[in-house]
Amino acid sequence: MKKRPVRLVIVGSLALDSVETPFEKKRDLLGGSVSYACAAASFFTKTGMVAIAGQDFPSAYLDAYRKFGIDLAGLNVVRGRTFRWSGVYETNMIDRRTLSTDLNVFASFSPELPAAYRSAPFVLLGNIAPALQMHVLEQVKKPRFVIADTMDLWINTAKKQLMQVISGVDMLMLNDGEARLLTGEYNLRRCAARILDWGPAYVVVKKGEHGALLFSRKGIFIVPAYPVDEVCDPTGAGDSFAGGFLGALAGSTVVNERTVRESLLYGSVVASFTVEDFSLNRLMKVSRSDIRKRITGLKKMTSAS
Amino acid sequence: MKKRPVRLVIVGSLALDSVETPFEKKRDLLGGSVSYACAAASFFTKTGMVAIAGQDFPSAYLDAYRKFGIDLAGLNVVRGRTFRWSGVYETNMIDRRTLSTDLNVFASFSPELPAAYRSAPFVLLGNIAPALQMHVLEQVKKPRFVIADTMDLWINTAKKQLMQVISGVDMLMLNDGEARLLTGEYNLRRCAARILDWGPAYVVVKKGEHGALLFSRKGIFIVPAYPVDEVCDPTGAGDSFAGGFLGALAGSTVVNERTVRESLLYGSVVASFTVEDFSLNRLMKVSRSDIRKRITGLKKMTSAS
Repeated sequence: MKKRPVRLVIVGSLALDSVETPFEKKRDLLGGSVSYACAAASFFTKTGMVAIAGQDFPSAYLDAYRKFGIDLAGLNVVRGRTFRWSGVYETNMIDRRTLSTDLNVFASFSPELPAAYRSAPFVLLGNIAPALQMHVLEQVKKPRFVIADTMDLWINTAKKQLMQVISGVDMLMLNDGEARLLTGEYNLRRCAARILDWGPAYVVVKKGEHGALLFSRKGIFIVPAYPVDEVCDPTGAGDSFAGGFLGALAGSTVVNERTVRESLLYGSVVASFTVEDFSLNRLMKVSRSDIRKRITGLKKMTSAS
Repeated sequence: MKKRPVRLVIVGSLALDSVETPFEKKRDLLGGSVSYACAAASFFTKTGMVAIAGQDFPSAYLDAYRKFGIDLAGLNVVRGRTFRWSGVYETNMIDRRTLSTDLNVFASFSPELPAAYRSAPFVLLGNIAPALQMHVLEQVKKPRFVIADTMDLWINTAKKQLMQVISGVDMLMLNDGEARLLTGEYNLRRCAARILDWGPAYVVVKKGEHGALLFSRKGIFIVPAYPVDEVCDPTGAGDSFAGGFLGALAGSTVVNERTVRESLLYGSVVASFTVEDFSLNRLMKVSRSDIRKRITGLKKMTSAS
């Protein structure tokens, strides 16, 4: 059987997470932005992972990636320990405190794309140092659509390089607090107007349980969050949203305002599954038909007529 | 000219507000839940106000009510000073601190409905003591649709009476924190399921700048907030939302899931105007056509296709 070519390349952190919620405590879960984003995207398109792991990375987790159909040619397994993160969630299941961050092999991460990935039309630059995001941008050949994710750390410590990344991508995705920090504006419409001036055609401002806002020159799209019955662990929701979105867009026949909006609903729905269990546990049991059902439900929940 | 009969009765607090935002400081503004709710509702239906004011209540403010077309037969002006509230908003324009609350004549408020109001088909029980809300319920004759609003104070101090009110209304409207406090559940779907079990056909959970959620036995409707360019003063947003909603519903030909959803969009849009200036200043300049334009805009912002 001929392998499908990789259509979406996702670069990001790969980690073993130890997560404590008010109800449970789990150790060494499969985590990191690249794990969530690739799993989410793989429902819709052939996705290649660019990441670094240590030799202690469990083979069961590699099997999990393969079951999602993720291409692992860009996953570099090197001597040393895998990046480890641990954190604890407050009762509201939103605010969290980081207990420890051991970068380990991730400290020496330099994302190198396999030759087959360099002409992939869709690229998700996960939340890593802007210099590394630039390094990826330099390797790809005229991609159709590139997203950059970022965080407060890079806004505070590497703003110049981050601005260079922003000017070179089609969409910037960040949360509301980060949008405010980055632009110095408080109102989100103003934040977005600033960022659109810097180059991207789209800005997505994530608001956690409240969904997200898409801003483009065509207007605003209010992306609803699918209301779940129970949040087990919110880790990875934002990465699943980004991966699910870009996967769905890569699986669309064209890229336009309409398919961007529609794909954001897919991102929202995939993220709603992610939070219902730890790690990728819920996504492992989800089918395309489960996703379609929630899409239909979400559309009903946002339609007045 | 024959006066149109009052179709919607709104009971609540009437106050002179002193508001401090990070940018401005205003004294003795026309405020109180009943002012915002009546003004919002008056765009859509003949609205009667049941409230109490002191003799110091400025006649210019009575004129403002009249300009909105609000029926004032239920407004009782008595000896003494009008209720005064003062508060200060944080930089985020959401969190606020109450500086002072002088109940004055409001301490002796006992809402008595003029005879003409008792057969009004729509009733909004603004956020006042549950015993007073019950007193209003006892005076009305088989209303078509009654909403109760409430707050943490009554959940903490008058829960038994509040539960009685809840069991006698068609819709309970409260914010997310209050829904959690009232039900002891954290997840909003679960909060709503509990409240629906107590009697109301509808629960609306308000989430401030993030909109609201409507829960009914028919499902969930995600009510979007209209994204404004600048928030000047968020005071009264929730009351405008409630009043605008029930006014629009009272102006509809029938009450059903579809007209409830549609009317919630009207509530959301009217609230978006309210926050763009202090007091009722922005609403005073708004036309039906301005409202319709934002409704069209909001529908575009929530439609993927």
